[in-house]
Amino acid sequence: MATAVTPGEVAIAPSSKAFTALSEKLKEIQAFSGISGLLGWDEMVMMPAGAAGSRGAQKSALAGLLHERKSDPAIGELLEQLQREEGQGADAFRAAAVREAAREYRKVTAVTKDLAKREAEHETEAYQTWVKARQASNFSLFAPALEKWVALRRERAALIDPGKPVYDVLLDDYQPGLTSARLDSIFDQVKAGLVPLLADLRARGTPPDTAWLKGEFDTDAQAALCREIALTLGFDLEKGRLDVSVHPFTGGAHPTDVRMTTRFKKDSLLEGLTGTVHETGHALYEQGRNLEYDGLPVNEAAGMGVHESQSLLWERMVGLGRPFAAYLLPKIKAAFPQLPQDRTAEDLYRAVNEVLPRSLIRVEADEVTYPLHIILRYELESELVRGDISVDQLPELWNKKMKEYLGVEPESDAQGVLQDVHWSYGLFGYFPTYSLGAMMAAQIFEAARKDLPDFEAEAAAGNFSKLKAWLNKNIHQVEVGSLYPSADELLEKVTGSPLDPSILLEHLKSKYSELYGL
Amino acid sequence: MATAVTPGEVAIAPSSKAFTALSEKLKEIQAFSGISGLLGWDEMVMMPAGAAGSRGAQKSALAGLLHERKSDPAIGELLEQLQREEGQGADAFRAAAVREAAREYRKVTAVTKDLAKREAEHETEAYQTWVKARQASNFSLFAPALEKWVALRRERAALIDPGKPVYDVLLDDYQPGLTSARLDSIFDQVKAGLVPLLADLRARGTPPDTAWLKGEFDTDAQAALCREIALTLGFDLEKGRLDVSVHPFTGGAHPTDVRMTTRFKKDSLLEGLTGTVHETGHALYEQGRNLEYDGLPVNEAAGMGVHESQSLLWERMVGLGRPFAAYLLPKIKAAFPQLPQDRTAEDLYRAVNEVLPRSLIRVEADEVTYPLHIILRYELESELVRGDISVDQLPELWNKKMKEYLGVEPESDAQGVLQDVHWSYGLFGYFPTYSLGAMMAAQIFEAARKDLPDFEAEAAAGNFSKLKAWLNKNIHQVEVGSLYPSADELLEKVTGSPLDPSILLEHLKSKYSELYGL
Repeated sequence: MATAVTPGEVAIAPSSKAFTALSEKLKEIQAFSGISGLLGWDEMVMMPAGAAGSRGAQKSALAGLLHERKSDPAIGELLEQLQREEGQGADAFRAAAVREAAREYRKVTAVTKDLAKREAEHETEAYQTWVKARQASNFSLFAPALEKWVALRRERAALIDPGKPVYDVLLDDYQPGLTSARLDSIFDQVKAGLVPLLADLRARGTPPDTAWLKGEFDTDAQAALCREIALTLGFDLEKGRLDVSVHPFTGGAHPTDVRMTTRFKKDSLLEGLTGTVHETGHALYEQGRNLEYDGLPVNEAAGMGVHESQSLLWERMVGLGRPFAAYLLPKIKAAFPQLPQDRTAEDLYRAVNEVLPRSLIRVEADEVTYPLHIILRYELESELVRGDISVDQLPELWNKKMKEYLGVEPESDAQGVLQDVHWSYGLFGYFPTYSLGAMMAAQIFEAARKDLPDFEAEAAAGNFSKLKAWLNKNIHQVEVGSLYPSADELLEKVTGSPLDPSILLEHLKSKYSELYGL
Repeated sequence: MATAVTPGEVAIAPSSKAFTALSEKLKEIQAFSGISGLLGWDEMVMMPAGAAGSRGAQKSALAGLLHERKSDPAIGELLEQLQREEGQGADAFRAAAVREAAREYRKVTAVTKDLAKREAEHETEAYQTWVKARQASNFSLFAPALEKWVALRRERAALIDPGKPVYDVLLDDYQPGLTSARLDSIFDQVKAGLVPLLADLRARGTPPDTAWLKGEFDTDAQAALCREIALTLGFDLEKGRLDVSVHPFTGGAHPTDVRMTTRFKKDSLLEGLTGTVHETGHALYEQGRNLEYDGLPVNEAAGMGVHESQSLLWERMVGLGRPFAAYLLPKIKAAFPQLPQDRTAEDLYRAVNEVLPRSLIRVEADEVTYPLHIILRYELESELVRGDISVDQLPELWNKKMKEYLGVEPESDAQGVLQDVHWSYGLFGYFPTYSLGAMMAAQIFEAARKDLPDFEAEAAAGNFSKLKAWLNKNIHQVEVGSLYPSADELLEKVTGSPLDPSILLEHLKSKYSELYGL
């Protein structure tokens, strides 16, 4: 497959020798990144505990090597040459490969060794400090470490692009092309839709019966069921592995070597199931990547928001839908005979869609409340980075916003401002991708459903192959990875319009109004 | 622990800055080698089949990097400086680290890029050719590829050390310090002892009853038993993993991350057991390495012969001994109730020590016939490399020697000269290490037994901790890795004499004369 977006422009440009030389360097970098991915998987899933020290030395050597290779001045020279020549005609994929390579090179070379070293040192220290502060439920213990992160990230952003707002520079690491101005407007729209919906659900809604899904569930039986589901959704064991780890994740070394993990808790049937469908979505994106551009940055995922759109499309748009409940019900009844055998698919659909407006914890949130947790964090971290608020204001502002958006207030820092690990790693700009993913998932699913009129009947019968093929074609293959410089352009191409939060909002309003009998 | 062999000489030499700089470079190389080890393990044990291509690219990138780092001219300069200064006083470990680093650097830089490339290309081609020739049982199909290997290896040896016999240069890769002159004399002595012993066993001996050990054995039960045995012998799960693979091996990323694998066949109880004890011996060496010298070549294993001495000491000197049979018998009776429950430890001891003089296949050989298989290969490959015989004479000479040494003659090339993979990889000098290991195992075990008067009673009770501790101290720790430039010096230090084949010969003669009622 060699789809060129603008066929008229396809040409073997005069600089093809330079492009070949650049490709070789980029492919070597990708090979080492793949090795790094394998090491990460191994550490979480296979490594004996006593190897932590030696693995640390290996990871450090590999990180140093990756930095050395990525900042190779020869890459800079090739990029300059190619950028001069690209105007003379080159296909869109090649142009995108050069654009993405240049973006990465600029970032890697902008950050000084000294700053990278200080960041690396602070990473371990800040994380340890956060662990202790959370144990003590005392934000003030963590505040100095967080202040230092803000300073370090401002320094980084100023080196990379002093002309852009600091938060926008950081955001670019997670969702290229996105700005805080656009996020402000998106999230204001989402907030304006969800806060009243949530208040309504709480005031007038009838929550579903979930008691019948509670109990103890053998984890081996859960694992066997979830394996079957992952394979049914399309996970390919020829190009990946399924294992169990403490924290579920999807990683690996290459699109042909995708390592997906899940976990199972005895006292929760839904957590393992949800996690499995979510990670399968990530894995299908990875396994579906177009190998024609293997090793070139144009083939990398189009940002973390887009990646999350694939996991959330499967987890929420598919996994929380009525057809999936019809598919799942006989399977869980067979695997867990203690479940009441007279329950219907409709009962299951309702039970898995409980909204928990009183939950304080993001990772336990449902699809209605989740975006509000994210908006709260986005508002705080962007204001913090901009300097509009100070670190010591965070606990108070956190609690105030929780009350305002979700109608609940944490009683401790551990249940509030200290609940997430992200800030301890200095990750500002990461949180928004969770909700961007949810919005894109709704928008992409809507487009897919138009092309797949039989989806509901097929999904209820356990046949998801057409949806997988549609995503492979439209998101993973033809509109390959980072072909477009922004998620908006990708969405425009695939769905006909840029990111449109109203699709998710409409979906949530109509779904939960019906479910809660409003 | 900082044992200096010659305490009077310990001193912080003036070049310690150069030594530190060298150490950093060597430790980075070791980190990447460890990563390479992990990739190798993963490929054999975990990797999905579809990832073969991407893994190949990753391995190739890593191999290129290792060559680049190992041939870094800065290492050469540091070594020169250190070798000039070492005379001024340095401890033995440091001197050995420099010596071993220089040996490796000389080899890596002597081989031209062009030769390395031709070798790499021929490796794949020759292996494929060998596979086809073995399938067709037709040596002449493989002959041209083997001829090319001989030429390539002569070219390599001439680049590394034109003043030394070719075979000696190749041997140095597997057992440093060993020469073909010494091997000739060792192997002549072994042959002179074993050929008549074997003839005697065949003519007058009474083979043990092994029929009661045949049958079908559940592979899960075998795996559970072998896991217990590996742990009883001292394998440490904090610093390693036990898994199953098609070909048993011990690899991994570091002495704190030793990955050992075994395999189990339904129709053989002994193969899995023997493999487990053998690989545990390798693993105990790796896990026992002295971390004070971690990352420096002085801490590498003292050659493949010495490594094999550790696996064979456990497999043969311990695992085929009477105390081990006493330990093992109740375990196999419990795991496999179909075994006749009236059999004694003496029955088991006799059954596991069957000599199969009529076996044509090296990997199926017992401890009496095994050295003769090796001597045959050594004689042929050393004469081949010297130019005393030609490739096309190999099948005839192979069969002639089989008749002379083992009293049997292969009926096909597949069962004869084509049976081993080694020559298809151009590995000349590798075979001898198997039997060197056996001789060293006998010699080291004899020394250990003198220090451990209660070994027999303790082993019969399943307590092997003192032997493990003795090996840790004497082979793995104090006489750390490659402290000595040759196995002879290591053995001299540990056992009081250089390699002495008569110890193995005496052991085999007395053991099998008694067993076979001569």
